[in-house]
Amino acid sequence: MQWIDYVGLFGAALSSVTVVPQVIKAWQTKSVGDLSIWMVFILIGNVSTWLFYGIVKHDIAIIVANAIILFLSLLMLYFKLSFKK
Amino acid sequence: MQWIDYVGLFGAALSSVTVVPQVIKAWQTKSVGDLSIWMVFILIGNVSTWLFYGIVKHDIAIIVANAIILFLSLLMLYFKLSFKK
Repeated sequence: MQWIDYVGLFGAALSSVTVVPQVIKAWQTKSVGDLSIWMVFILIGNVSTWLFYGIVKHDIAIIVANAIILFLSLLMLYFKLSFKK
Repeated sequence: MQWIDYVGLFGAALSSVTVVPQVIKAWQTKSVGDLSIWMVFILIGNVSTWLFYGIVKHDIAIIVANAIILFLSLLMLYFKLSFKK
């Protein structure tokens, strides 16, 4: 692996945890009124596309990162739909 | 280009517009209280990393997608800091 591949892995790791603080905040406050449901829908679409891409390309970093984000964005969708405000 | 590369381009295009609905919603409602500022910070970090990765790898799709997301996430940070609630 070249040094730039480590940069890519770092980017993938950071991408995986991007929505973690939002999921925690939504869970703690039970308040999701300011969250856009369209952002969540598009996030699920984009992450599913990358997951499919990673599976076809046999790229484990893309698969793992996007599987994590898919799980977190489905959780965010669930919060958005269950918490009334 | 193989068919899977078009899937990657579609994923990149979808990634670019993911935060658009959130930026529009924040702008319209002037309400960002439920948004996690840590999500925005990590998003800026992850997108900057990918932008750097794209520049080093001369990958125009990665550069364009992440330049757009970087601009939108900086806008989101500005909204989060200017709108009080």
